[in-house]
Amino acid sequence: MSDVTRADGTAEGSAAVDVGEPAGGASSPGRLDLHGVAAVGVAEARVRRAYARIAEVDRPEVWITLVPEESATAAAREVDARLTAGAVLPLAGLTLAVKDNVDVAGLPTTAACPSFASDPAGRPGPAQVSAPAVQALVDAGAVILGKTNLDQFATGLVGVRSPFGAVRHATLPDRVSGGSSSGSAVAVALGIADIGIGTDTAGSGRVPAAFGALVGIKTTLGLVPTTGVVPACRSYDVVTTFTRDLELGVAATRTMVGADPTDPARRSWPVDVRLGLRSVPVVAVPRAEDLEPLSPGWRAAFDTAVQAVVATGAQVRTVDLSGMLSAARLLYDGAIVAERYEAVGAFLADAPDADPTVRSIILSGRDTPAHAYVADRALLAAAKAEAAAVLDGCDLLLLPTTTEHPTIAAVQADPLAINRRLGTYTNFVNLLDMAAVAIPAGEADGGPFGITVLSRAFDDQLALDLAARLLASADATSADDTSADDTSADDAPDVDRSLVGTGVDVLVVGAHLRGQPLNAELEELGARFVRAVRTSDAYRLVALDTQPRKPGLVRAGPGAGAPIAGEVWRLSPGALGRLLAGLPAPMSLGQVELADGAWVVGFGCTAESGAAGADITSSGGWVEALRRGL
Amino acid sequence: MSDVTRADGTAEGSAAVDVGEPAGGASSPGRLDLHGVAAVGVAEARVRRAYARIAEVDRPEVWITLVPEESATAAAREVDARLTAGAVLPLAGLTLAVKDNVDVAGLPTTAACPSFASDPAGRPGPAQVSAPAVQALVDAGAVILGKTNLDQFATGLVGVRSPFGAVRHATLPDRVSGGSSSGSAVAVALGIADIGIGTDTAGSGRVPAAFGALVGIKTTLGLVPTTGVVPACRSYDVVTTFTRDLELGVAATRTMVGADPTDPARRSWPVDVRLGLRSVPVVAVPRAEDLEPLSPGWRAAFDTAVQAVVATGAQVRTVDLSGMLSAARLLYDGAIVAERYEAVGAFLADAPDADPTVRSIILSGRDTPAHAYVADRALLAAAKAEAAAVLDGCDLLLLPTTTEHPTIAAVQADPLAINRRLGTYTNFVNLLDMAAVAIPAGEADGGPFGITVLSRAFDDQLALDLAARLLASADATSADDTSADDTSADDAPDVDRSLVGTGVDVLVVGAHLRGQPLNAELEELGARFVRAVRTSDAYRLVALDTQPRKPGLVRAGPGAGAPIAGEVWRLSPGALGRLLAGLPAPMSLGQVELADGAWVVGFGCTAESGAAGADITSSGGWVEALRRGL
Repeated sequence: MSDVTRADGTAEGSAAVDVGEPAGGASSPGRLDLHGVAAVGVAEARVRRAYARIAEVDRPEVWITLVPEESATAAAREVDARLTAGAVLPLAGLTLAVKDNVDVAGLPTTAACPSFASDPAGRPGPAQVSAPAVQALVDAGAVILGKTNLDQFATGLVGVRSPFGAVRHATLPDRVSGGSSSGSAVAVALGIADIGIGTDTAGSGRVPAAFGALVGIKTTLGLVPTTGVVPACRSYDVVTTFTRDLELGVAATRTMVGADPTDPARRSWPVDVRLGLRSVPVVAVPRAEDLEPLSPGWRAAFDTAVQAVVATGAQVRTVDLSGMLSAARLLYDGAIVAERYEAVGAFLADAPDADPTVRSIILSGRDTPAHAYVADRALLAAAKAEAAAVLDGCDLLLLPTTTEHPTIAAVQADPLAINRRLGTYTNFVNLLDMAAVAIPAGEADGGPFGITVLSRAFDDQLALDLAARLLASADATSADDTSADDTSADDAPDVDRSLVGTGVDVLVVGAHLRGQPLNAELEELGARFVRAVRTSDAYRLVALDTQPRKPGLVRAGPGAGAPIAGEVWRLSPGALGRLLAGLPAPMSLGQVELADGAWVVGFGCTAESGAAGADITSSGGWVEALRRGL
Repeated sequence: MSDVTRADGTAEGSAAVDVGEPAGGASSPGRLDLHGVAAVGVAEARVRRAYARIAEVDRPEVWITLVPEESATAAAREVDARLTAGAVLPLAGLTLAVKDNVDVAGLPTTAACPSFASDPAGRPGPAQVSAPAVQALVDAGAVILGKTNLDQFATGLVGVRSPFGAVRHATLPDRVSGGSSSGSAVAVALGIADIGIGTDTAGSGRVPAAFGALVGIKTTLGLVPTTGVVPACRSYDVVTTFTRDLELGVAATRTMVGADPTDPARRSWPVDVRLGLRSVPVVAVPRAEDLEPLSPGWRAAFDTAVQAVVATGAQVRTVDLSGMLSAARLLYDGAIVAERYEAVGAFLADAPDADPTVRSIILSGRDTPAHAYVADRALLAAAKAEAAAVLDGCDLLLLPTTTEHPTIAAVQADPLAINRRLGTYTNFVNLLDMAAVAIPAGEADGGPFGITVLSRAFDDQLALDLAARLLASADATSADDTSADDTSADDAPDVDRSLVGTGVDVLVVGAHLRGQPLNAELEELGARFVRAVRTSDAYRLVALDTQPRKPGLVRAGPGAGAPIAGEVWRLSPGALGRLLAGLPAPMSLGQVELADGAWVVGFGCTAESGAAGADITSSGGWVEALRRGL
């Protein structure tokens, strides 16, 4: 506890947070070199800059516990030392703001209720170990700046339900920041932290992303462990990320997936998980009547977003969202709220510093009978099946993230109704076991506007892929899109957009190439394009007598052939098995050597067919051979 | 309703069941030819024989609603007509006894509470449609004889908790039949029905199997739809089969899996489902202290069963069962019992014909708070993770199915304690998401003794495979094992023991053959041996320069090679993908032609390696080539 600066503020932003002043008062050796990246390490420089930004923005309500700058810079120096020693740290020196319902070793976990961190019925004392999801980020080189404010016990979508004060919006301080992960989102939106860790049960990882013009990634339930998280509804809680760009969000999320092998709620990627979105996906969008809760400005912005989806080449299909919107009501109006009581209700009944709105919501679940909960779960199961039917034939669902961007004053005047409306398009998502990526999509009503791409469970990658296309398209069309607080884009680590860490690389050289007749087979299997390649010079290419026309790649031995052009696609093991099961004679699959010396699974053919085919090796590849009319 | 004979009996076996008398009183044309199978169809003869057996055994308490013989024979004639028309009906003419908590179109569903079938809060009137699982059996040619007695609302393991009377044991009438699926089990044990349909939440598909010397198959939750079943605990109910032999149980179960594509609780076989048990499986068995609840006779019989497992070649490993046995208590002593209240509690509170024991159990769940249910579900999730850790490295778990075989009088004198003890080794299984196969294993205490093979979720096939080995071993060692009531074994349909209907057939010709060094790879992937085969004469075999030594199968063209000996193994798509991903150069996989003209995925090699290898085609296969020292 000695190296923790604790903010025990009361309501309305009066929290006294120590920003930037080392606990011990002594300057570190590197401190004067704050802007001299070469003189100190990369990680240390980045952390110093974060504390400078904390001081600059003067937003004490963002933090509940801030790590003293000297402690954080010491951690950063350790990261720099590991880098120097040759460690591969994909998140080296990236700064982390952790929502204060997620354990960080040595820091208290208040869930925005200070007494929770001292009461025996709460989480008394500092956490002994970090939540495995957070620890995974630290192990990958991230440095924790502190614990952030939230709607108490993660109950709310507004960011005003906290004795540590309402978290004001990053750029529009009279408006809400969105909650419940308010502090983490604003820390990122203000350019303090690179990665904000939130939690999302009803939309807490998405609504603040929309208001903050951030990317919020809410994975399928069970992928990122919730070990070490104060439950909101333990069946439906997800640990999420806020980042200023998608790639970093993917990198952080990928790091957290599977971080606790002993998590009882753990779910793993299916063996046939889809790794890539087809080139012309079908994207479901709601009917006009499903969009009535939107403010006029948000309504217009959503129409523009749908046009942007069409502009990426996707097909848009209107679907009836009413079943999903009805299911959303089960989260607070039904028996599911008993999960909130189960988590913290016994403590909250007598807590002196409970937010009155939060307390009334959570205590409303105290006397719910179990048989009503069982019945509501059955309703949810039916709603899930109905949603699956509605979305049949669609790859993804596009929704506005929320309905409007209210002021803090409006929410304080009416603590329930606006909050409820804000969850219209988020509340049902975890209940119905869907994944979601919230991204910025321009402006509306004088502030950021946000949309969410939703997918079936475990199709997270597909949602990320559409999100990436939309963001790339927006970048391409707005040259002035670089926000002032985006201090990290230039030196962010080199990451890709692949969330699923596994897959089998497969070389295609003929009819499965992009633009060729069988490429759709790969897309249907959820294959992901990796790169264009050439084989080593050990291969000859022949034209086979097949329908559709295909080439055969025949290994002739080193130097006995020529480099043949192809593409590497990544498939799940299940998809690869299906590809092989459906592969007609005379084609085969086996290891093929690439020009860079790597070996991957690749297409071949029988010796009989290879010997019978006309040699087209001189073309250097099938597409060129076709062009030449060979 | 006009063709339904309804038994509205009261307690103690006084139910007046019409056995064998046609409702209309008229003889069918075929009736006089009861034993003349040639004169009527196969199905009709089988159904006639069932009704003769019903009359012969005089066990009215088995049935709650018996289908009139003429209606059943009419259904059988339809089956015969479909057979004549060329339909493939794997269960043609097999007779079916359906537990009366499962809907059959046109028949009432009482769940052993007659008023439930007329009360608006129950299931008033005859069912409009059959449960999809039952309909699938009928579609496959099975003929329904009637609805069977049960422990009311499937609450019990004894078979005495019914106003339709205690269901007496098939051969030891002073003993219980076991429940709750008492009537279905006894109908099969008495040789009336070929297939008994039960349901299993706490062991109701296994305990009656043990007492009846039957095979009881309880699949992984969600595979067989529970649509059209009166829930006991809707989260944990499974539709099960009782049969006199394993193969028929597998055939019936396979038919029911996935029968309702719209079932919200539906789960499908994973893409990497294991299709076969390894040759030397690791079988977990409990410690001595975990077996203390057993009667001395059952304890000794279990020790013998463990020796029988060892005799099949399996490795036995002692594990600590205490965590699983503790989890079992959550089914009745915790909040989970609220699921029973949710299902039928509101009706049962005022039902005049409720069994007092059943009523007291189910109404005990009325006031359980939802937060306690949520907490118990979290305990279960932890217990499931703990059980997974205990069973890590084991393929299966072997347990006694129950603890003893009590008399009806003893159970009636103490309705709760004995019933509870009977569930010691069954209650935790559905809670912890395991699959189970109960099989007979000799005798104990003057009656049948039974064991259960348990597996992880979706490893059902592995449990069935060990069960088959144990049954085959028992058959081989006891020549007098043909029970008097086994009237169907001789003319049962030709079925195999494969529960999972899908998979990809793969030809191996070298190091993956049984007895060869890489066969363990196939076993590790859960591959299932299908048959020994030969290729067509289009293939040559060469010896490759690999480690371990492998042959290469090279397609040379029709007549240009020779039939090469190999084996077909079936793999899941996920396993096939993994096999290919790990396949080293110069091996490949692609379509290979068999001697019978079929094409399957099979091993090949690159043209380069094929050309370099020594030709060993004349050996006719790799094993012979090795024998010859080629």
